[in-house]
Amino acid sequence: MARTSGSTDIQTALEGSHAAAAWLKSVPAPVERSTQLVKLSRVELRRLGTTLDADSAVELFESIDDELAARSLAAMVPADAARLLDALDTDHGADVLRDMKDPLREEVLSAMPPERAIALRGLLTWPEDSVAAHMIPEALTVRPEMTVAEAVAVLRADAATLRSDSWTGAYVYVTDPDAHLVGVIAFRDLVLADADQTVSSLMNQDLLSVSPLTDQEDAALALMDYNLVAVPVVDADGRLLGILTENTAGDIAEEEATEDAERQGGSEPLDVPYLRASPWRLWRKRVGWLLLLFVAEAYTGTVLRAFEDEMEAVVALAFFIPLLIGTGGNTGTQITTTLVRALATGQVRLRDMPAVLAKEMSTGVLIALTMATAAIIRAWTLGVGAEVTLTVSLTVGAIVLWSAFVASILPPLLKKLRIDPALVSAPLIATIVDGTGLIIYFWIAHMTLSQLQGL
Amino acid sequence: MARTSGSTDIQTALEGSHAAAAWLKSVPAPVERSTQLVKLSRVELRRLGTTLDADSAVELFESIDDELAARSLAAMVPADAARLLDALDTDHGADVLRDMKDPLREEVLSAMPPERAIALRGLLTWPEDSVAAHMIPEALTVRPEMTVAEAVAVLRADAATLRSDSWTGAYVYVTDPDAHLVGVIAFRDLVLADADQTVSSLMNQDLLSVSPLTDQEDAALALMDYNLVAVPVVDADGRLLGILTENTAGDIAEEEATEDAERQGGSEPLDVPYLRASPWRLWRKRVGWLLLLFVAEAYTGTVLRAFEDEMEAVVALAFFIPLLIGTGGNTGTQITTTLVRALATGQVRLRDMPAVLAKEMSTGVLIALTMATAAIIRAWTLGVGAEVTLTVSLTVGAIVLWSAFVASILPPLLKKLRIDPALVSAPLIATIVDGTGLIIYFWIAHMTLSQLQGL
Repeated sequence: MARTSGSTDIQTALEGSHAAAAWLKSVPAPVERSTQLVKLSRVELRRLGTTLDADSAVELFESIDDELAARSLAAMVPADAARLLDALDTDHGADVLRDMKDPLREEVLSAMPPERAIALRGLLTWPEDSVAAHMIPEALTVRPEMTVAEAVAVLRADAATLRSDSWTGAYVYVTDPDAHLVGVIAFRDLVLADADQTVSSLMNQDLLSVSPLTDQEDAALALMDYNLVAVPVVDADGRLLGILTENTAGDIAEEEATEDAERQGGSEPLDVPYLRASPWRLWRKRVGWLLLLFVAEAYTGTVLRAFEDEMEAVVALAFFIPLLIGTGGNTGTQITTTLVRALATGQVRLRDMPAVLAKEMSTGVLIALTMATAAIIRAWTLGVGAEVTLTVSLTVGAIVLWSAFVASILPPLLKKLRIDPALVSAPLIATIVDGTGLIIYFWIAHMTLSQLQGL
Repeated sequence: MARTSGSTDIQTALEGSHAAAAWLKSVPAPVERSTQLVKLSRVELRRLGTTLDADSAVELFESIDDELAARSLAAMVPADAARLLDALDTDHGADVLRDMKDPLREEVLSAMPPERAIALRGLLTWPEDSVAAHMIPEALTVRPEMTVAEAVAVLRADAATLRSDSWTGAYVYVTDPDAHLVGVIAFRDLVLADADQTVSSLMNQDLLSVSPLTDQEDAALALMDYNLVAVPVVDADGRLLGILTENTAGDIAEEEATEDAERQGGSEPLDVPYLRASPWRLWRKRVGWLLLLFVAEAYTGTVLRAFEDEMEAVVALAFFIPLLIGTGGNTGTQITTTLVRALATGQVRLRDMPAVLAKEMSTGVLIALTMATAAIIRAWTLGVGAEVTLTVSLTVGAIVLWSAFVASILPPLLKKLRIDPALVSAPLIATIVDGTGLIIYFWIAHMTLSQLQGL
């Protein structure tokens, strides 16, 4: 990536006048900006608040995450914080305010121009995971009966007063006098058309819209699936409330993918960028699952104690415990991670479940045969005799099939229960298969080993 | 999501005239379109090729994945396939062609208008993972010395002949007569400015650009990080080659997130949507890692056989094997999944590694203390005596720290070696910790258990 370079440190930069703008120019990389900003003292942040102009504030806050933006604003004089927030796009401002605690949030909102505060409070009332909380509440609109010349004149006048984000760049929405959405028109078509054509003759009436309480992830997914630049949010009566842009949808999708990845690793989502998570926060987000899995895994001890006599009779059985349960866990993890992602991207829906199960069980048979063959070779090289070799080989096959079944069933089951399927993490599936796999192992051993016939 | 509904089946729909357009209208959901399309016979696909008009082709192919598009086109008469591909945006057309095998691809390219074939061949020559392979090669440009009125006239004329995708919607690039990129101007500024201002007085000269061989993932990440609508791709001499749009960047990011998720689950990426992957393909993508992990895990058997005397002396040691190695694997998985995602989104860079290691080892100490306490409780309830309880508790703490160390080191190490860190899957980290954890276990047992002093 090429760009004007010659890096400056933020503390040095803030000494002079036009300080912030010069610093932003010299430090273009978003991560580097965050890294430097996070080191500022309260006094330095307060000075930043005083010297930062509106344009620089937009550039700075667009390149850092909302939590850091909220934290930085909280250190500033409320009037400064209000002035800087006022410069941001409404949806972005609301996202930052959502990360501010309440006496302070109220102070900042009170210091803003009343109409801005109303717009922001409006967004803050929607549930945080609804699409309405992330929409741009002001959209540029024209009326269907206008001519192209009239529409361009209206847009020209509106664009001068409206915020930058009320402009998706490419589309203008068409509404009737009661704000009902009746169509959409590409800005380009408006400019390139003859001046006396009407908007209604150019607009597209067949458009996708979402209701305000739609889950943000579903709306973002729909926008990306349909390859749209923006999706209008309309109320039950068909009135235009705002728009979800491609940019915001991309942010939502990335955030959700990160949360899913963290859940899949058997951890709660961190909610802040990794480098800013303290060891205490990491501990808090991880230890719950670790303890839960520990308790669940603990019953493997109970199972093994129950089969103490078998292990004493044929100690070679113990050699294969990690290998058998490890293979079961691996097989299950492969399936759940693929399924959880396919459910998250909408590639697989609940109604596809019979097909998924059939596919996974067929694949499971192929994998069971392969792994059982590998197990024969391994047991043979360890020199444990034909009977134990047979036991181990049969067990690998059985555990692979059992694991495939559990792993194919669990994610869709959670989805059906409206629980995030990403909770079926690699550690969880491994834990479930460990204990049950051991029971399968000793059950098969009982059937195949002559030394265990008396036990 | 609201939209005109009343679903039709594709086979029924293709009977009449205007068949495809009506079907697309009645089946708006992309997944449902794929599901139905995949069921068509070669004869039906051939008929679809003949009846599909250009607009419907664009709508259909934008809503399905490239592999299915390529497969469907392959069944059609080459002249039809060429006509439909010609209707697509150039970058999209190239993506589909990349999924077609070669004698057929050549046939289709030969059946296209020569200048289109040249543009497509141009994109196909770039490496598949470079940004240039996914850029839109035709961008709308104006000259810096033009007035606004002249620029709009040029755009009006160009837009009539250029493909829809050469238009990012919001920005127009400014180039000199030798095609060197000198600036960018928002289309909105062009329309809202006075007619006699010059483009150079309105354009922004400080713009981010990428070189054509930049990795597609890095370019997509930069675009999203900097909140841009498009990034221009320029050669070493500063000439504009094309643009990467936000839409394409979003697709790249989603695809990479899916591949990373699949790798993290210990599987090769499927490369096709899950529902279209046959059991054979699933087997092929999964069995390699399973066998590799099986071989790696097999040495746990060697370790356990080496400690056969210890297990015979204190059979209770065997009870805790799954619990100990399971906890080690879980701790490591939590760390690697978080780190791999943070490396993929650019939140963590290689230079942050000392900070990461310090953070993870601090967190590791907190987790080791917690889990060691849990282990004391568990061992006590199993009634295995004070010495074994001490062994188990110390081992849990040691394995947690060891696992945290390995898990913090491996992903950045792979990144440093230019290998995808996502290869450090949950199964891989569990496998590494299993065998080494057992050695730690029996080593601690030797030090703490009086019964083992003679061995």
